[in-house]
Order: sequence, then C-alpha cells, then structure tokens
Amino acid sequence: MSHKKLWIPGPTEPDKDVLLQQAKWLIGHRAPEYTKLYESVIGQLKEFFQTKQNVATITSSGTIWMDIIARNFVKKKALAGVCGAFSKRMYQTIQACDKDVDLLDVEWGKAIKPEAVMEALSKDDYDTVAIVHNETSTGVRNPIADIGKAIKAEYPHIIFAVDAVSSAGGDYIVPEEMNTDLLFTSTQKCFALPPGLSIACYSDAAVQRAEEVTNRGYYTDLLAHHKDWEKRHQNPTTPNISLLYALDYQLGRMLKEGPRARYERHAEMAKITQEWANKHFAMFPEKGYESITVSTIANTKELDVPALNKELAKAGHMIANGYGAALKNKTFRIGHMGEHTPYDVKALLHVIEEIWEL
Amino acid sequence: MSHKKLWIPGPTEPDKDVLLQQAKWLIGHRAPEYTKLYESVIGQLKEFFQTKQNVATITSSGTIWMDIIARNFVKKKALAGVCGAFSKRMYQTIQACDKDVDLLDVEWGKAIKPEAVMEALSKDDYDTVAIVHNETSTGVRNPIADIGKAIKAEYPHIIFAVDAVSSAGGDYIVPEEMNTDLLFTSTQKCFALPPGLSIACYSDAAVQRAEEVTNRGYYTDLLAHHKDWEKRHQNPTTPNISLLYALDYQLGRMLKEGPRARYERHAEMAKITQEWANKHFAMFPEKGYESITVSTIANTKELDVPALNKELAKAGHMIANGYGAALKNKTFRIGHMGEHTPYDVKALLHVIEEIWEL
Repeated sequence: MSHKKLWIPGPTEPDKDVLLQQAKWLIGHRAPEYTKLYESVIGQLKEFFQTKQNVATITSSGTIWMDIIARNFVKKKALAGVCGAFSKRMYQTIQACDKDVDLLDVEWGKAIKPEAVMEALSKDDYDTVAIVHNETSTGVRNPIADIGKAIKAEYPHIIFAVDAVSSAGGDYIVPEEMNTDLLFTSTQKCFALPPGLSIACYSDAAVQRAEEVTNRGYYTDLLAHHKDWEKRHQNPTTPNISLLYALDYQLGRMLKEGPRARYERHAEMAKITQEWANKHFAMFPEKGYESITVSTIANTKELDVPALNKELAKAGHMIANGYGAALKNKTFRIGHMGEHTPYDVKALLHVIEEIWEL
Repeated sequence: MSHKKLWIPGPTEPDKDVLLQQAKWLIGHRAPEYTKLYESVIGQLKEFFQTKQNVATITSSGTIWMDIIARNFVKKKALAGVCGAFSKRMYQTIQACDKDVDLLDVEWGKAIKPEAVMEALSKDDYDTVAIVHNETSTGVRNPIADIGKAIKAEYPHIIFAVDAVSSAGGDYIVPEEMNTDLLFTSTQKCFALPPGLSIACYSDAAVQRAEEVTNRGYYTDLLAHHKDWEKRHQNPTTPNISLLYALDYQLGRMLKEGPRARYERHAEMAKITQEWANKHFAMFPEKGYESITVSTIANTKELDVPALNKELAKAGHMIANGYGAALKNKTFRIGHMGEHTPYDVKALLHVIEEIWEL
C-alpha cells in the first residue's frame, strides 16, 4: 500500500477533493478574478475566526511570522516563552533579527502559566510578548486566553503575538477573546491543506506598532502585505494561487461544519487518545494542559517507535516519533487534526494495539 | 469560455498534467520519501542549470530573495542597478533592510551595460552588486554575462546577485558562465508551474559572505536553508510538498527538451513577436536588448489595451497591459514563456490582428 494516512502533527491528511482544487487552471494575480478569490478567502477566514481583526495570508511556511514578529513589533525588548522546540525557535529567531529578548523558560512538558508571564514582565520594560499556543513538540496547550487577559490588564501597550500553527482551525480560537495582536498559523495543520501558505489575524495595534519600527525588510514587512490588501485586495508579490483555490474550497467545508463543532470533534479525538495513552502509557504534558490537536505520549514501555511506524506503513498509516534528540523514542506523537474523525482515531489506536500487542 | 490562456509575464500557463501532480497525497516532510523527492528536485535543477553551485528552493515568492540578498550579503555597501519596476523593488528592499545602497539608474527601456556598472563601482567601496537579468516591466534583457565577467575581473570579492525571475528556465542560463554568486527565480514564470516556490543557485562565496554577516533572521537566512540541505537533504521549515511534486515532474519534461532547445524555442517565440511588433507598432526596449521571454511593445497606435483583453478573453486568451502608471496603455506585454510554442504565438498574434484590425 503506497499511500500512508498521515497522523503526524503536520502535514496532515487533506481530502482528495481539496487536493484536486490545486489542479485548476491558473488566473492572473492582478486580475479581477483573483481579487474575487482572495476576498472570498479573507472573508471566510474572518468568519471562521469570528474576528474583526485584519487577516492576511503569505506564500510561506508559518515560520516566517517569527521573523515578522521580531522585525515589526520589537522596539526595545521582547519576552519569549519557551516550552519546547518550536517556541525555542521563536526565541532564537528574535535573537537572529538582532532584537533584545528575554527567555521565559519552563520545563518541557509543562505549560506557561499567566503568573509566570506576569512575574517575568514585572522585571523589565517589554513591548512584545511571544508565546506558542500549542507546542507541537511536547503536545502542551498553553492557556493563551488567560495569559492574554493578564497581560492586557496591566500592560495594554504590549503586542501579544501567538504561534497557533498546530492549533488554529482545530482548537477553538477567537483572537479578540484571547487578546492577541497577532495570531499565526499555516495551512498544513488543522486546516488540512498542503503546506505553502501562512495565515495570520492581526490587530490595528499591531499595524500601528509596525509603523513605529524600522528595518522591517520587504517580504517580512507586515505593512507591505497589509497595504496591498487595503489598496486592492491583493498581495504585494505573486501568491500561491493553486493553494488559495484549495483554501477557499476547504474554508467552505470548515464553515459548514462550524468552528465550535470542529473544536468539539478535535476535543473528542484528544479525549479518546488521552484515555488510551493513560491506559497503556502516560501523557507527556502536564495534566490539564494537553493539546487537543496533537497528543504527545510518554513511551513508558520503551517500545520501538520506528519499528511501529514500519508496521503501521503496511496498514497505511504513519504517526510521529518524539521531536528532536530530547524526546525521540522517549515520546511518540499522534496528530489528530484536520479531517480525521473519532472513528478514525479508534481504528488507528486499535492497529497500534495489535502491532505492539498491548 | 471560462479558461483564459495566460500570455501575461507570469503566472504563465502550466500543462494540465503538471497541475495534477499537485493532487497527489502528501508525505511527511521529515520522512525518507520526502528526502528522495527533494534530492530529485535539486539534482534535476543542477542538471538543468548545468551548475556545480549550490541550489535551494524556498516556499515563498521569488521576491524573498531580495530580502535575502540584503540581509546575507551586504556588509558595507551595495550597488543596485535599476531599469524598471522590479529592479527598483530590489533597491528599495535593500534600503528597507537598513543597508547602505547606491542606485545605478538607467532610463526605462534601456539596458544596464557593463561599462556603466564598472564606472559606478569605481566610485566607492562596494561588496555586493544586485542586477535584474530580465526586467519584467520594460522587457529589457540585461547583458548579465558581460557584467559578471567585468565585475569579477576587477572586484573578485564582490557578491554578484541576479534576479532571473522572468528569464530562468526559458533564457539560457548557466550560473558559472555568468559569474553569478546568487541567481534566483520562481516557479510561475518560465518553469511553467503555479507560483509558490522560489529557486536559487548560489556559490560557495555567497555562503562564506553570509557567514560574515549578522542579523540575517531565520526565514531569510540563507545559511538556515543551506545547512538543512547539507545536514539531511531537507528544508528548515515545512515546504510546499504539492508544488515540489509538480516541480519534480516538470523538471523531467524540461530536461527531456533540454536547456538549449528550450532556449531556442523561447528565442523563436521572441523573434516572431518582435517582427510582428516592429511591423505594427515598435518594440519598447533598446534594440539588441529585447527579452526572449516577455515582449514589451510600445503602443504607438494608442489602441485600447483593456478593450483588447476583453475581446481576447472571449477567444480564451489574456495578455498584459504595461506595468505601473508609467507604462500602462503606453505599452503592452506578451509573455511567451514556459510551455507556449511558436505556433501558439502566431495564433495569438493573429487573433490580436483581427480584433484590432491591423
């Protein structure tokens, strides 16, 4: 069987109809037909996120938004919460953009709590806070809404930037309810599309901040993207039209399901996986902070994860090993996101039970 | 007729088989099957460009390489040749990255000559030269090989960076023969694929220079991309797998035709278009420096270009108006690149003759 169903935490499994949207004939990206497509995409994104914030897409991986955060928002100093490999990349990217940044470090597997953020913020004069919502390496879901509320109550001038790459489109996210000034994601996770586009919701305060910061570059300049939307409802550079066709189509499906129902389906898949993990192994994340889109399971039985994946491949499935040297083989991950269903999850877990004789 | 065949200078018209490659099931971007795909892509790109330089793709528009040039190569000062809208963007991007840059400005429609570059270089201490090969707005083809030879003879330490967005894959380009340290393009022009990926050939000297420059960021850090290839033949962030399938497939077709034959086909399409333009109108570029991938034609009869496109749409075609306020309606452009043939060009020109009663 050549096709392996992807249970890795991205890219996840798109529907074949969605993939086929990418085979449509191209259109000119300065033509009215493109403007119509892009308006439909942005309109549907706003509807799905129930937001009045600005929404943009960029032809890039989600990661480019780490550069954008550093280059557009950090004036004097940023605070970066680190609880795993991807939030660490955010910290390192801010450094790589020559901006001053302090580290708020928590043990991997633990969540970043509002109290820890507020304590860190009391120590210096910060203008930007960057935190990951769903840390894809540890499977931890940080309490972003509580953190956002606490920050804005005391430091309303701070730009609160959130990496929601592996949660948005699956977990329930309304930017205004989380007090985020920037929330970014990409297409290959809970949106269940191929990789190649990033998506962000950003506040007017984020735009104002960018206007005060120099050395933003061009491709990483939030204002270049923002102004092109304002001016002509297009993009400053040639966008990935094929993937925008697919995103437009998939958003129609997502809105038909609805953001709340989509969240509940993901929560149900997480519950099934967590119960199974707690029966046979243990969950890696701190209790109460488990991601609902990717479960990181502690490999307490020290079973052979690569060997499992080899057997799973024969049954047409693929899960993920732990991320990086620290978590490989000590954990394994199941990405239950996008188009997967509770029924599919049970079937997968059953196959794993058979292979590992659990 | 809903599908308009694209004769704009990008996106151009991909073959349906190539578009359909994008509908294939996804694979994990850290899995051996992805490594195999990416090795095939990079290997075929090296073969097509007949180069021993390094080759990278990034999930982005081609424009990101303007940021990369500024952030990775410019230590003290750059010289940017400007002869149209896209080369102007290069100049502005280097400025937007807070780097010192001098402008070598030539009249739009004229080419940047080696003598002008050498004269400019004699006036200050430059470490980077950025010039466009094929200026998509004016349809001018700059003599990059002569410029590269002149620069390297006198200033071997200078990093020579070339925007070949609308020429590479159609015009005949071997980086070593042009003495380029960086040559970048994107998929939606002469490669005849959807937009969404950029492609670059870069020298070891380019890598060395980047190692000497700080504040490169992460997504715009040439070394991040370079090191991931060196380490595991993959990418630092999730790449556009669907488009890489299509690129891999299309490179097979391009190699079957061969870079020389592909060049000759483009040269033949340019010849047909130029002869037609000179009979009915006039070519906009300086004689001898006309692009072979996009013809910018001076609208000497002051005919109505938008009205032409409206009529062309009924026949299933679309050409491009002049670029920007300065050239709109004063010129119009025909992008004869990618998969178009001399036969197709003749047919298109015949339709235009009928509509405009030439």
